[in-house]
Amino acid sequence: MPSFDQITDALAQQAIELPSWAFGNSGTRFRVFPQAGVPRDPFEKVADAAEVHRLTGLAPKVALHIPWDLVDDFAALRRHAEDHGVALGTINSNTFQDEAYKLGSLAHRDAAVRRKAIDHHLRCIEIMGETGSQDLKIWLADGTNYPGQDDMRARQDHLSESLTEIYAAIGEGQRLVLEYKIFEPAFYHTDVPDWGTSYAQVTALGDKAFVCLDTGHHAPSTNIEFIVMQLLRLGKLGSFDFNSRFYADDDLIVGAADPFQLFRILVEVIRGGGYGTGSGVAFMLDQCHNIEKKIPGQIRSVLNVQEMTARALLLDRKALDAAQRDGDVLTANGVFMDAFSTDVRPALAEWRESRGLPADPMAAYAASDYQSRIEADRVGGDQAGWGA
Amino acid sequence: MPSFDQITDALAQQAIELPSWAFGNSGTRFRVFPQAGVPRDPFEKVADAAEVHRLTGLAPKVALHIPWDLVDDFAALRRHAEDHGVALGTINSNTFQDEAYKLGSLAHRDAAVRRKAIDHHLRCIEIMGETGSQDLKIWLADGTNYPGQDDMRARQDHLSESLTEIYAAIGEGQRLVLEYKIFEPAFYHTDVPDWGTSYAQVTALGDKAFVCLDTGHHAPSTNIEFIVMQLLRLGKLGSFDFNSRFYADDDLIVGAADPFQLFRILVEVIRGGGYGTGSGVAFMLDQCHNIEKKIPGQIRSVLNVQEMTARALLLDRKALDAAQRDGDVLTANGVFMDAFSTDVRPALAEWRESRGLPADPMAAYAASDYQSRIEADRVGGDQAGWGA
Amino acid sequence: MPSFDQITDALAQQAIELPSWAFGNSGTRFRVFPQAGVPRDPFEKVADAAEVHRLTGLAPKVALHIPWDLVDDFAALRRHAEDHGVALGTINSNTFQDEAYKLGSLAHRDAAVRRKAIDHHLRCIEIMGETGSQDLKIWLADGTNYPGQDDMRARQDHLSESLTEIYAAIGEGQRLVLEYKIFEPAFYHTDVPDWGTSYAQVTALGDKAFVCLDTGHHAPSTNIEFIVMQLLRLGKLGSFDFNSRFYADDDLIVGAADPFQLFRILVEVIRGGGYGTGSGVAFMLDQCHNIEKKIPGQIRSVLNVQEMTARALLLDRKALDAAQRDGDVLTANGVFMDAFSTDVRPALAEWRESRGLPADPMAAYAASDYQSRIEADRVGGDQAGWGA
Amino acid sequence: MPSFDQITDALAQQAIELPSWAFGNSGTRFRVFPQAGVPRDPFEKVADAAEVHRLTGLAPKVALHIPWDLVDDFAALRRHAEDHGVALGTINSNTFQDEAYKLGSLAHRDAAVRRKAIDHHLRCIEIMGETGSQDLKIWLADGTNYPGQDDMRARQDHLSESLTEIYAAIGEGQRLVLEYKIFEPAFYHTDVPDWGTSYAQVTALGDKAFVCLDTGHHAPSTNIEFIVMQLLRLGKLGSFDFNSRFYADDDLIVGAADPFQLFRILVEVIRGGGYGTGSGVAFMLDQCHNIEKKIPGQIRSVLNVQEMTARALLLDRKALDAAQRDGDVLTANGVFMDAFSTDVRPALAEWRESRGLPADPMAAYAASDYQSRIEADRVGGDQAGWGA
Repeated sequence: MPSFDQITDALAQQAIELPSWAFGNSGTRFRVFPQAGVPRDPFEKVADAAEVHRLTGLAPKVALHIPWDLVDDFAALRRHAEDHGVALGTINSNTFQDEAYKLGSLAHRDAAVRRKAIDHHLRCIEIMGETGSQDLKIWLADGTNYPGQDDMRARQDHLSESLTEIYAAIGEGQRLVLEYKIFEPAFYHTDVPDWGTSYAQVTALGDKAFVCLDTGHHAPSTNIEFIVMQLLRLGKLGSFDFNSRFYADDDLIVGAADPFQLFRILVEVIRGGGYGTGSGVAFMLDQCHNIEKKIPGQIRSVLNVQEMTARALLLDRKALDAAQRDGDVLTANGVFMDAFSTDVRPALAEWRESRGLPADPMAAYAASDYQSRIEADRVGGDQAGWGA
Repeated sequence: MPSFDQITDALAQQAIELPSWAFGNSGTRFRVFPQAGVPRDPFEKVADAAEVHRLTGLAPKVALHIPWDLVDDFAALRRHAEDHGVALGTINSNTFQDEAYKLGSLAHRDAAVRRKAIDHHLRCIEIMGETGSQDLKIWLADGTNYPGQDDMRARQDHLSESLTEIYAAIGEGQRLVLEYKIFEPAFYHTDVPDWGTSYAQVTALGDKAFVCLDTGHHAPSTNIEFIVMQLLRLGKLGSFDFNSRFYADDDLIVGAADPFQLFRILVEVIRGGGYGTGSGVAFMLDQCHNIEKKIPGQIRSVLNVQEMTARALLLDRKALDAAQRDGDVLTANGVFMDAFSTDVRPALAEWRESRGLPADPMAAYAASDYQSRIEADRVGGDQAGWGA
Repeated sequence: MPSFDQITDALAQQAIELPSWAFGNSGTRFRVFPQAGVPRDPFEKVADAAEVHRLTGLAPKVALHIPWDLVDDFAALRRHAEDHGVALGTINSNTFQDEAYKLGSLAHRDAAVRRKAIDHHLRCIEIMGETGSQDLKIWLADGTNYPGQDDMRARQDHLSESLTEIYAAIGEGQRLVLEYKIFEPAFYHTDVPDWGTSYAQVTALGDKAFVCLDTGHHAPSTNIEFIVMQLLRLGKLGSFDFNSRFYADDDLIVGAADPFQLFRILVEVIRGGGYGTGSGVAFMLDQCHNIEKKIPGQIRSVLNVQEMTARALLLDRKALDAAQRDGDVLTANGVFMDAFSTDVRPALAEWRESRGLPADPMAAYAASDYQSRIEADRVGGDQAGWGA
Repeated sequence: MPSFDQITDALAQQAIELPSWAFGNSGTRFRVFPQAGVPRDPFEKVADAAEVHRLTGLAPKVALHIPWDLVDDFAALRRHAEDHGVALGTINSNTFQDEAYKLGSLAHRDAAVRRKAIDHHLRCIEIMGETGSQDLKIWLADGTNYPGQDDMRARQDHLSESLTEIYAAIGEGQRLVLEYKIFEPAFYHTDVPDWGTSYAQVTALGDKAFVCLDTGHHAPSTNIEFIVMQLLRLGKLGSFDFNSRFYADDDLIVGAADPFQLFRILVEVIRGGGYGTGSGVAFMLDQCHNIEKKIPGQIRSVLNVQEMTARALLLDRKALDAAQRDGDVLTANGVFMDAFSTDVRPALAEWRESRGLPADPMAAYAASDYQSRIEADRVGGDQAGWGA
C-alpha cells in the first residue's frame, strides 16, 4: 500500500464545486423548514461557500443556478467571489418552475414552449461568458406521469433538436453536460432517464457535450461505479453531482448512506483518469440540507469526499492487479478492502495543518462566530430557496 | 364465471372516501403548479367531492385533514356536506408542518414536542365527535435522515406511549388507524416503516386500533395483496389509501400504473371479507393530481376502483378452488386471468344508467359546466394546498 | 378505435421464436423438478415447439442453444424442423458452464480463456450456416461477485476485442445481438449490465450488430418501454427475450406478472416500426416453466403476446395524438387505457377459427393426446435441461 | 470513545455459528462449480468448520442441515465435533427438494404433503436431542409463481396449523425460529415473506418461538437495522443468518457488499441487548462461496463480523445520546461515523495474539497445509452440495 506521503500530491489537486442552492432553504413536498442565517441573495450564498473553502481548501468553486442566482451584474458577483477566494463554476439551467413547463421544456410537444426553453439556455450561455464558467449543466424535469400522456419518441426527437440548437451556441472552452434521472418530478417516464440516453444524445451533439452523473439518480441496486468506468472509457464523463441516498433521490450528504460505494466510485474515477488537474471531470455536490445546518453540512460533505479519495489513492494497485490476474478472488477483494478499511483521518488532519488549514474543519467552524454572525445579520429580506 | 347480474348487489355496496386535499393544489418539491378553480376552503372542497359522487354514486364520504380543513363550525360543514349528498369521513391528523415537528412528533425525543403532537390528536378526536367521523387516521412523517441521528428504539417506545394516550381518548364506535410508510419525507428511517410495525403497535393498543395500508408506501417489489390477506386474517386491516406508483410514493391515480395489481388486491379484499357493507374496511383515495385536472382525476380514480372490483367479483372462485386443489398451475392462473381479462365497461355503463347515473361519468363531467363555473367563480382568495 | 378487422393483417404477421430450452427441465438453485415427457434431444424439443405452432400459428421458429442443442447433423435437424412446419432460428451461445469460464469468458483477463470463448462463438456462426439462422445471440454470465475481484475497465476492453473478432466472422444476412443483464449469476458487477453498455459495444462493431432486450434483466422500476423506444429510434433493437418477473430474472410466462407493461412495450414496438414482416426485430421467448407443464406454458405465452399485440394494434393513435397535442393528460391516458381495457379474446378466437386454427389452443392441447403420448413414449434416456 | 481495552471483554463473547453447507459446493441455477477438497460427508464439514474456529476463536458451533447432514449416528458426529473443539448447533430443516414439495410443504393445500413435512420437522427435533442443538430453524420455499395459483389465505392458515403441531414437540430449552424471505425459489408470493408474517406466526405459537432474520431476504432499500431493533424490542429476535447482497439473495460474504450496513445492524444488536453471553440471539452465517475458496471464505466472514462488532462496541454512546437529545443532527451522525471510521484491525491483531490466536487468520490459513492436505486427501466419493 502506498504511504500517505505518496498520495498528498494527488490529494492537493482535489477541487469540489459547491452548489449555491445548498445554502438556501430546501425540503420535501411535505415541508420546507427555514433556517436562521440563510442567504437572501447570490452574494451571501457565495460568501457561505467561500467559508467552506476557507476551512477545508477543497471547494474553490461555486455552481450557480439560473434563475435562482440571477443578478443584475454578474461581473460584480464574479469579483465578489474572487474577493472571497473562490470562482464561479457551472451554470445550471432551470426549466421546471415556470407555468409553461408544466408538461415539459426542451422535449415538449409544443414548439413555442421549446423555443422558450432553448432561449433560457442561450441566456445561460451568455451568463457563462460573464461568469467565466466552463460548463452548462442541463437537468430536465421533462417527462410524463401517465402511460399514453405523451409520445415518448416524438419527445426524444424534440429533445435532440433542442439540444442541437443549444449546443451550437456553446463556445470555445465551454461544455454542455446533460444529466439523467430515473424519476421525479415525473412519475411515469423521464426524457433522460439513464446514462445510455444521455450518452446517445451527447454523442450525437459532438466533442463538447458530456454526461453528468448524479449519484442519486439511478434505479435501486444500480452499480454506479460501473457507469463511471464506462463513461470514462467512452470519453464522455463530464461531471458528477455527488450526494447519497437510501431510497430515491434523497440528496443526503455525500458518503452518508454508503461510504463504501463512494469509495468504489472514487477508485474507478482515479483508475479511469477522471481525477486531478486536467482530468476534465467536474466534481460537484448536489445535496439538500433539509434538517441539518447548511454550512457544516457542506463541510462534512467535502471532507467525506476527501476521506474516501484518500482511501482510494491508498489502494495498492500493483498487489490488486497481481491478485486479479491470478484469479485469486479473496486476495483481490482483500487488497481492495485494506484500502477501504484504512483510517485516514489522523493523517489528513496533520496534512491539513501543514497547509495552514484547521486540522478539524467541523470543529473550527463550530468554534468560529460565522454561524452566529450570519444568524444575527441576515434578518429581513427573503431567504433563498428553490423557489427564488 | 358469475354473470354481471350476479354481482350488482355487491357492486352497489361500493363506497369510497375522497380526500379533501385531492381537490387542492399539490406538486413535488420542485414545483406546485396551481390550477384554476381550485377550492379556497373546506366547503368548496366538499362541493367538489360531492360532484364526484353525484356523477358516479361511488363516493359518499369526504375525508378531512386537520389543520388544512379546520373550520370554525364543523357542524356547519357537516350540514353543508349532507346538503350536497355526502358525509364527512376520516379525520387525518397532521404533525409534519409545524416548526416543532422538524425532527419528529409522536416519536420525538423531547416530551414537550410529543405533548404538543398528542394534544393535536386529542383535538382531532374532538372534531370527530363534531363531524360524525369514525376513524382517526395517523400518518407520521417521523423519522431520521442520517444513521445515528436519533435512537430508533427510544423513539419506538415514545411512539408507543404517545399512541397509548391518544387511544385512550378514542370513543365508542371510533377507531384509530395507523398508517405505515417506508420513506419520505424521512430518508434514513421512518418510525412506522412497514405493516409489521404498525401491526405490533396497534395490537398493543387494543380492539379499536387498526392498520392503514397505503398502496404507495412499500419497498419495490413488495407483494401488497399478501399484506392485505394477512391483515384481514389477523383482523387488523382498518383502511386503504388507494393510489398508484411506478417508483416511490408517486400518488398517481389508482390503477394507473398497474391495473393488474389493483385487481389482485381487490380479489384478496373480497376473499378476506374486507368488502361491502359491514366489512369495517374503509376504502379511501390518497392521490395527487399534480398535472391533471382534480375533479375528473377523482372521477377516473373511483371508476378504476369500480372496474377492478367488478372484475374481481366476476372471478369464478369455484373453478379457481378446484384448479388450486388439483395443483393445476396453468388452469388456476387461467381462471384468475379470465376475470381480469373481462371488459366490464359496457355492463357497468348500462348498470349506471339503470340507477340514474350517467353511463360515462367522465364524459358527463366534461359536458357539464361545473369546471367552467368553478373556474369563473373561484377567483381571489387563497387556493387550498398542502400548506393550508 | 380501429375495428378488429382492421388489425388482422397486422396480427397475421406475428411470429415468435420459441426457445428449445423451454421444453427441457429447469428450476432454481434450490431444485430442478423433472417433468414426465420432457425431450431427451433437440429433435424432440423441436417437435414440441412445432406442436405449439400447430395449435397457435404464432411460433414458426425454434431458437437453439449451443452446446445444449449440439447434434452431429444440423442439416438433419433443419429438415426435421421443416418436416414439422417450423424453422430453426437464433443460435444462442453458452459460455457459462465450462470450468474455464468460472471467472468469465469473452471478458476474462486471461487471453487463453477468451480464445476458447471466441472459438466457441466462431463455431456457433458455422452452425448458423448449417441451420440457416440469422442471429447469433450472445448473453454473457461474465462479471464478478466482489468489489476489487477484477478490473472492470480491463474486462470491458477485452470484451470489446473479443466481440470484434467474433463480429468479423458474421456473414451476409447474419447479425450479432448482444444481450444485457443487471445481475445473476454474477452478484457484484456484470460486464454487460445495461442497454447503454450493449449499445456502446454494438455501435462500435458495426451495422450488423444489435442489442437484445430481455424483459427480465433490468433494475426494479426501470421503464422498459422507454428503452424499446430509444433502441428503435437509434436503429439498434435486434431482438426481444420475452418473459415476466415480479422480483429478479424470474423468467415467468410473458404477461403473467404485469400484462399492462407488456401492452406498453408492444405499443412502443409498433409505434417505432419494430413489428411485422420486415421489421428486423426478432420476438423470442426466454422463460422457465419450473412448476407448470412446458408445452401449455409456451402456448399460454404466445397467446399472451398475441392478446396484448391485438390490444396495442387497437390503440386509436389519431385520438391519442390529438389529446397529447392538447396536453390533455386525462384524455390521452383514457384513450390509451381504452385499448388496454378491450377484451380481444372473443374476436381472436373467431379469427383463429377462420384460419383453421383451434379457437382455444389451450383447450385444444388439453383435449389432444400429445402430452400423454410424450409421457408414455419418452421413457429412458437423459431428459434435457440446462446442464445438457 | 471507549478504548479498545474496554471492549475486549465483550469481544471475547463473540460466537458465530458456521453453516455446514458453506463448505460444500454451491452455485446458481446456471452452474455449480465444484472445488477441490470439498467435504464428502458431515464429518469432513465439521472438520473444516473447526479449522475456522481454530484460527479465529470466533466460530464454536456448526449448524446442520437435514437431510444433507443426515448420519447414522449423531452421537458420533457430536463427539467428532467436540474432539475438534466445536459443538453442533442449529438444526435446519429442508422441505424444498423432495418431489412432494414442488408446490409447498407446511403450507401446501394437501394435508398429506403437510403431514410429510411436519413429520420431517418432528424428526429434526429428535435429532436436536441427539446433537444437543437448541434451535430448530425453519426456512420454507413455500409459495407460488403465478397469481391465482393457490389461495394465499388458506395456505397461511395451513402454515399456522403445521407450525402449531411442530411447536408442540419443541422441548425444554429448545426453540423454534422461523425465517422469512421475500422471494426465491417462489416468484409471485412466498408464505413467509416478511418479518411481520414471521412475527405474527411465532407470536401465536408461544414463548419458545422466534424470528430468524437473514440479511439477504428483504426487498431493496429495506432498513434492516430497524427490523433488528423492533424484533429485539418485541422480544422475538431468535437468530441471524448473516451474508450480504447487492441485488437479491446473493449470499455473498457478510460485510462484502455494504460494511456500513453491517455496522449499523451490530449497533442495534448491541443497543437492544442482542449481543453477548446470555443474549439468546444466535449469530449464524448463511453464505455461498460459489467462486472463492470455502474455508478462507468463512474465515473472512467471521473476521468481518468481528471487525464491525469492534467498531460498534467503540461507539461513544454517551456522546451520541447527548447529541441526539440536543437534536444536533450533524454531531450525532459524526459521533456515529467516528466509530465506523475507526480502523480496528491492528488492535484486533494484537488482541488475537494475546489470546494465542494467529494475528492474521487469513495469512495463517494460507501458510498452513490444510488446504493442500484436504485437496490431496479428499479424492473420490461424492462432494457435498445442496443436493445431498
